[in-house]
Amino acid sequence: MSLNTDFWVTDNTAPGAGYRYAVSKVLVWKKTNFQDLAIVDTPVFGRALLLDGNWQSSVSDEFLYHEPLVHPAMLWHGKPRKVAILGGGEGATLREVLRWKTVDKAVMVDLDGEVVEACKTHLPEMHQGSFGDLRAELVIGDARDWLQATDEKYDVVISDLSEPLEHGPAYELFTKEYFLKVREVLKPDGYLALQAGSVAPQEIDLFARVCNTVAAVFEHARPYASMIPSFAAPWGFVLASSQSLDSLPDPNSTDRTIAELVGGTLRMLDGEALHGLFMVSGHVRRAIERESRVYTIDHPPQR
Amino acid sequence: MSLNTDFWVTDNTAPGAGYRYAVSKVLVWKKTNFQDLAIVDTPVFGRALLLDGNWQSSVSDEFLYHEPLVHPAMLWHGKPRKVAILGGGEGATLREVLRWKTVDKAVMVDLDGEVVEACKTHLPEMHQGSFGDLRAELVIGDARDWLQATDEKYDVVISDLSEPLEHGPAYELFTKEYFLKVREVLKPDGYLALQAGSVAPQEIDLFARVCNTVAAVFEHARPYASMIPSFAAPWGFVLASSQSLDSLPDPNSTDRTIAELVGGTLRMLDGEALHGLFMVSGHVRRAIERESRVYTIDHPPQR
Amino acid sequence: MSLNTDFWVTDNTAPGAGYRYAVSKVLVWKKTNFQDLAIVDTPVFGRALLLDGNWQSSVSDEFLYHEPLVHPAMLWHGKPRKVAILGGGEGATLREVLRWKTVDKAVMVDLDGEVVEACKTHLPEMHQGSFGDLRAELVIGDARDWLQATDEKYDVVISDLSEPLEHGPAYELFTKEYFLKVREVLKPDGYLALQAGSVAPQEIDLFARVCNTVAAVFEHARPYASMIPSFAAPWGFVLASSQSLDSLPDPNSTDRTIAELVGGTLRMLDGEALHGLFMVSGHVRRAIERESRVYTIDHPPQR
Amino acid sequence: MSLNTDFWVTDNTAPGAGYRYAVSKVLVWKKTNFQDLAIVDTPVFGRALLLDGNWQSSVSDEFLYHEPLVHPAMLWHGKPRKVAILGGGEGATLREVLRWKTVDKAVMVDLDGEVVEACKTHLPEMHQGSFGDLRAELVIGDARDWLQATDEKYDVVISDLSEPLEHGPAYELFTKEYFLKVREVLKPDGYLALQAGSVAPQEIDLFARVCNTVAAVFEHARPYASMIPSFAAPWGFVLASSQSLDSLPDPNSTDRTIAELVGGTLRMLDGEALHGLFMVSGHVRRAIERESRVYTIDHPPQR
Repeated sequence: MSLNTDFWVTDNTAPGAGYRYAVSKVLVWKKTNFQDLAIVDTPVFGRALLLDGNWQSSVSDEFLYHEPLVHPAMLWHGKPRKVAILGGGEGATLREVLRWKTVDKAVMVDLDGEVVEACKTHLPEMHQGSFGDLRAELVIGDARDWLQATDEKYDVVISDLSEPLEHGPAYELFTKEYFLKVREVLKPDGYLALQAGSVAPQEIDLFARVCNTVAAVFEHARPYASMIPSFAAPWGFVLASSQSLDSLPDPNSTDRTIAELVGGTLRMLDGEALHGLFMVSGHVRRAIERESRVYTIDHPPQR
Repeated sequence: MSLNTDFWVTDNTAPGAGYRYAVSKVLVWKKTNFQDLAIVDTPVFGRALLLDGNWQSSVSDEFLYHEPLVHPAMLWHGKPRKVAILGGGEGATLREVLRWKTVDKAVMVDLDGEVVEACKTHLPEMHQGSFGDLRAELVIGDARDWLQATDEKYDVVISDLSEPLEHGPAYELFTKEYFLKVREVLKPDGYLALQAGSVAPQEIDLFARVCNTVAAVFEHARPYASMIPSFAAPWGFVLASSQSLDSLPDPNSTDRTIAELVGGTLRMLDGEALHGLFMVSGHVRRAIERESRVYTIDHPPQR
Repeated sequence: MSLNTDFWVTDNTAPGAGYRYAVSKVLVWKKTNFQDLAIVDTPVFGRALLLDGNWQSSVSDEFLYHEPLVHPAMLWHGKPRKVAILGGGEGATLREVLRWKTVDKAVMVDLDGEVVEACKTHLPEMHQGSFGDLRAELVIGDARDWLQATDEKYDVVISDLSEPLEHGPAYELFTKEYFLKVREVLKPDGYLALQAGSVAPQEIDLFARVCNTVAAVFEHARPYASMIPSFAAPWGFVLASSQSLDSLPDPNSTDRTIAELVGGTLRMLDGEALHGLFMVSGHVRRAIERESRVYTIDHPPQR
Repeated sequence: MSLNTDFWVTDNTAPGAGYRYAVSKVLVWKKTNFQDLAIVDTPVFGRALLLDGNWQSSVSDEFLYHEPLVHPAMLWHGKPRKVAILGGGEGATLREVLRWKTVDKAVMVDLDGEVVEACKTHLPEMHQGSFGDLRAELVIGDARDWLQATDEKYDVVISDLSEPLEHGPAYELFTKEYFLKVREVLKPDGYLALQAGSVAPQEIDLFARVCNTVAAVFEHARPYASMIPSFAAPWGFVLASSQSLDSLPDPNSTDRTIAELVGGTLRMLDGEALHGLFMVSGHVRRAIERESRVYTIDHPPQR
């Protein structure tokens, strides 16, 4: 059933630019305690989640976001057992984490229970039943409180929070203080992966500053990027650890690990693709080298 | 000077999706003998060229298109002397070719002289004076006629034509017959590079078919992709040759070649970035493996 | 509660022009058996009804449509007792009819029961409880069938059907055959009033043809127009009867009739405003004079 | 020649609503010393003038604005000889004034000579050569300075200035001080007509305040309104004089005056249409009655 009304959502990627999507159905559109939540059907990108009017993910290309977000940290670790996800409302990050047979506990901490509930109901392609997996634990609450309170240590932490540009609830979760807290819950051989915003030339300074902030806390930090069509921009991530990140795993070895520990293949990520993600362009590396500022609670990201 | 009128161009990336750009100045907007030509200033992406309403390039991120288009073929060859560019209206492809000190002749063949003239006048950041370089030769005419007529052989041919999806003048230039003609003007150790359209999941089949068509003509063909924000999509290219393309050059060796033969550095492309471009995602490689169709004059690309 | 998502509806008033409305809430959006139905909140025009993507009415300015649609026919008659409304989904036409103390029966015949039910629930400002009035009778069905079947005669018939331009369910209800049926259910001193589309210069020929079609059936027909901001166009109506329509009632006498028979005042329509509605511009009258075509079942309105 | 680029102008009629027009050609788009000036071709409304992004007039429906602006004041006067136009860039107001054979002098005072020059060149359908009429005198300058300096008295003054809502150059020309100056240059039996903004329900208070401000200066003031499709709103005007405006001229007498003194007929305005313009809706009259505020230099119109 497709509806004829000429309904459009515009994701304003910058003042003076926006990506318009026709909408064929509005499944959810409400104010939660924290943000505006919308789940809509779009003819071009399939069902999609929007928070405060900003596109979060769509079923047609979320794998280009969630596989790069999750698997590099898992692969670098090799045998992740305990994983924490900060944010991750749709459940697709949890889904990718739980693909790993090695994982016996995956905690997902999201501020907004109404978003999670709506995704459970309306985005089954995203979570694919992950919330019902016995290894999964869902905590509704502030990631900072949870980091403070937990007394367990984790192999991998995935920070899957709304982009820092907006004045949403994730506003202070890209600061040095936050990453210090994340480091405390990681085991010595643990890894942090986070989404870190657009690497389009107009916005690369923000990404560079997030990289620099992570590098102020972790001994090793490495940027990488994936192309996500519905974001209308190349998207940046950071992998960080106290372990060295200098050498990329051999493609064949990555393929074998995935076959063995994940079982089968992933959609976009394999040994070759991992190189593609981490061998980033010169202009991105130079923007990070140039950058000296660090985000703190007193000087958080702003538009 | 920025103008207040609420003027927008929409690049309709698909039925039901479009990228909207505010426009602050219209420098050229006219019908040529072949297409609609517009050169506009946009606050977000800087000055931009549009043909038939389709975004071609903008000064803010054209380097993410033109460096990947030109340099991989040049690097694989190692010492390109004679280069042919098919299409390439803005002159930015020519600019990148002429960076190579080894080049002593660069022929650019574009159908639409009015586009080239307008770019000469209004897009100096793009061509940077390349049209006046003594090694450059500009031919206004049909690429197929030129391929037929030329009796020289080339080290590198760059096919920089409007995307095959549209019913523009480049409509039949993504067919087997066309690539056969290109092969004839290449030396035995020559290389072809071409832009080949979006690799977004919704459009990847078209890209896969272009790859397959090139592979039907050349012994070796290899896809690669670059993220171009103003295209709102990851963009695909193909490198082809009768020489093997299996091994990627060592990053340090690439950096040395660029330093020596180009002089200085490029903006995005270096040894590491070259790996990033060519180590493509699994879903792209599988789309190409699945594909069996070949475009011909009788069965050209269509929407 | 206003939602931040950048959600817009565009009512395409013509190819190449459209009125865009921000939407702050979607109350209903579904396919009925006949058309797409949407009820939305808009910050500019308040709550609004859309059918097949076409704006029908909004609470902020519906009185500029419904008062001119209903009261001229009622006033010309003087003491209307039995009134039939063909169409009229929101119940606002019914509301205006029932203001008349003289009315003891108002039948409303609408094709689409789902539209009526949704309006009952979500547009109480429109119907103001009219559906519960003991004098009101709601028939869900085709206006043509009802006209065929009814054996009563009416003082006033109000045709409040979606505009003939669209391929909606009202497609054939602006034809000579239809108006002949309407005439049969009117008493000899009865009056027909109908909405008849935009009188903007670009669309005036359609309005003129509807006028001409009505005039082919009724001895007397008179066009009039009201300015409705949310329609982005001046809107045309036709009053028709076998009684003379030549002289306009004196303003004071109209004001007295309204005070006495309606009780109180209306929002826009009074003795002076009635003159304003019926003293139409020269270019509208001349467009009607020029027009010779008549819509029939075999030659219905089309775009 | 129509161009394919998907170029749109949006006239933002309110926050949350806008009228979008496809543009097929940009003839002029520049910053003058006072404002942004654009003249564009639109497929729906024909060639149009925009100032600071606000739609001023289009060739398809400007007669619905300019005839009501000019002729009522002229008709009430009966034999206007000297007429002053304040504003009126396109020359269409001048054109209507010069239709009157009785006129022997028409002064047009516009602030922005670049707008006038561009209209002379690109909008011949608007001015129809009026600027070359020997009875016309064009003054480039501030209307207030001209009012101060002139020592002649006028039969009719037409105030045709950009709407007061915007922060354009006409910002203070809707104040009591301004209307006092206008009164001084009018003969005792002179008439002022001015455009006074939208009478849509959302904006009617502004119109009511302009009416009230005029009525604070002139003994008699009377509102009227015309429907202008490309404005997406009904449009308000005020006629003012120290002469009584109570009785509307008999339609036949108006038609005779037009036939005799103008020669031929006008497009929209005749004896009947004049009644239609001045017999305004009850809600408009009541909004004016309710209004007590007066705009002054110290309290000018603002959004």
